[in-house]
Amino acid sequence: MNTVAIAGVGLIGGSFALALRKAGFQGTIIGVSSPATVQKALSLGVIDEAMPLAEAVSAADLVYLAQPISQILETLDVLDTDALVTDAGSTKAVICDRARRLKRFVGGHPMAGKESRGVEHADADLFRGRPYVLTMHEPQLETWIARFGARLVILDPAHHDQQVAFASHLPQLLSTALAGILAGKEQVAGPAAADLTRLALSPYDIWRDIFATNAEPIDAALRDFIARLEQVRKQLRSSELELVFSQAADAARALRRFR
Amino acid sequence: MNTVAIAGVGLIGGSFALALRKAGFQGTIIGVSSPATVQKALSLGVIDEAMPLAEAVSAADLVYLAQPISQILETLDVLDTDALVTDAGSTKAVICDRARRLKRFVGGHPMAGKESRGVEHADADLFRGRPYVLTMHEPQLETWIARFGARLVILDPAHHDQQVAFASHLPQLLSTALAGILAGKEQVAGPAAADLTRLALSPYDIWRDIFATNAEPIDAALRDFIARLEQVRKQLRSSELELVFSQAADAARALRRFR
Repeated sequence: MNTVAIAGVGLIGGSFALALRKAGFQGTIIGVSSPATVQKALSLGVIDEAMPLAEAVSAADLVYLAQPISQILETLDVLDTDALVTDAGSTKAVICDRARRLKRFVGGHPMAGKESRGVEHADADLFRGRPYVLTMHEPQLETWIARFGARLVILDPAHHDQQVAFASHLPQLLSTALAGILAGKEQVAGPAAADLTRLALSPYDIWRDIFATNAEPIDAALRDFIARLEQVRKQLRSSELELVFSQAADAARALRRFR
Repeated sequence: MNTVAIAGVGLIGGSFALALRKAGFQGTIIGVSSPATVQKALSLGVIDEAMPLAEAVSAADLVYLAQPISQILETLDVLDTDALVTDAGSTKAVICDRARRLKRFVGGHPMAGKESRGVEHADADLFRGRPYVLTMHEPQLETWIARFGARLVILDPAHHDQQVAFASHLPQLLSTALAGILAGKEQVAGPAAADLTRLALSPYDIWRDIFATNAEPIDAALRDFIARLEQVRKQLRSSELELVFSQAADAARALRRFR
């Protein structure tokens, strides 16, 4: 691997570049982004060169799409390359489907982030200790993921989308719905309310594409959750909730052990 | 006020004693608790004396009930005093109703806590900056609450129970239900899932009494929340969620400003 083209040099694309360098990549990293971002990325030493997409891709052995999902979809439509292509979008089925005309595409989802976005917050260790999903095995990508210190998870696109609908999109919607319902009830709100409404501070812009490309699995997760709440309503006056609490505490501990 | 009797010298009762001292109370503080707790409280200097309930109450100008709710209810049934009585239970309607035979009772709910319980974690500043609910105005209690640096909130029992059903009991049940639904989906769980399942680690024992004494308002909060989730399901494929997100973010920020 001599040349990597990164489309979208923000937090994730920039961190991928820095992580590659830290992991020993000696080749050229080409950035494809807006003029302002490219300028920042060059001056921070995150990328070596900047080029328009077609030019960057024709020079690259690996193309890394780290744009918002809707832009990844647009890029996939114009991409013409035999090089290995992967992406960092947070939903996978729509993207992988759109990439079918490419010879060598593997969907990816590095499950890492920060509250601050932009290449200026890029971090060579962003992926360390975090899950990195690939939609199928790909030896070259797996080697780099291992060198990043990330935890490889292989999941087919539909399964990935279903899992993140539960583990990531559902928590966001619960937090948003709870914050909405607590409007005007601030006077007795304590740490519990603060904990559960932190995600509700997230801006909508990253969520637009997620809802547009994962509506069905999210709807299924919401239906499932509503069914659980209906069950809790029935159990409120019984001792069955003791078991529900203890199983939930076990599950919450398991989540923490896994991380 | 010369003598205060505190029934239940755990985290809250012990912190009330220490907060009184710090606020300049010069009188005697009598603890009523299990032999082991009373021993710890005496050796830590949290209380001055230990007595059985009846004896402590007959000596006291103020009786502070900081036991679990079910014990508060039992104590109220045997209490025989003209002194001012207040409590620290996290639901108010059932307690205030049970206290009707007392001459001078004001329900209370200091909305403060810690992950660690017990008198050894008692803290003179536990109430500082936190809401302290009284079910009606009472000048003497209000003076101490102000000296503790707590934020006085006057709410009648029914209104209190309805507000905490939303702001405290609903978040707990959402967290518990979410942790339960994420069992077996650990591999892609990130910070969002961790944030929202922290409360699910809480032990059931403090919740048993809360559900037993606040089932109706909690059920109403759950119904209300489920209705919101059903609305979110309808909005998943529309742009309406953008407004829902921005209103939720405003509400989440308001919650934080209030604290």
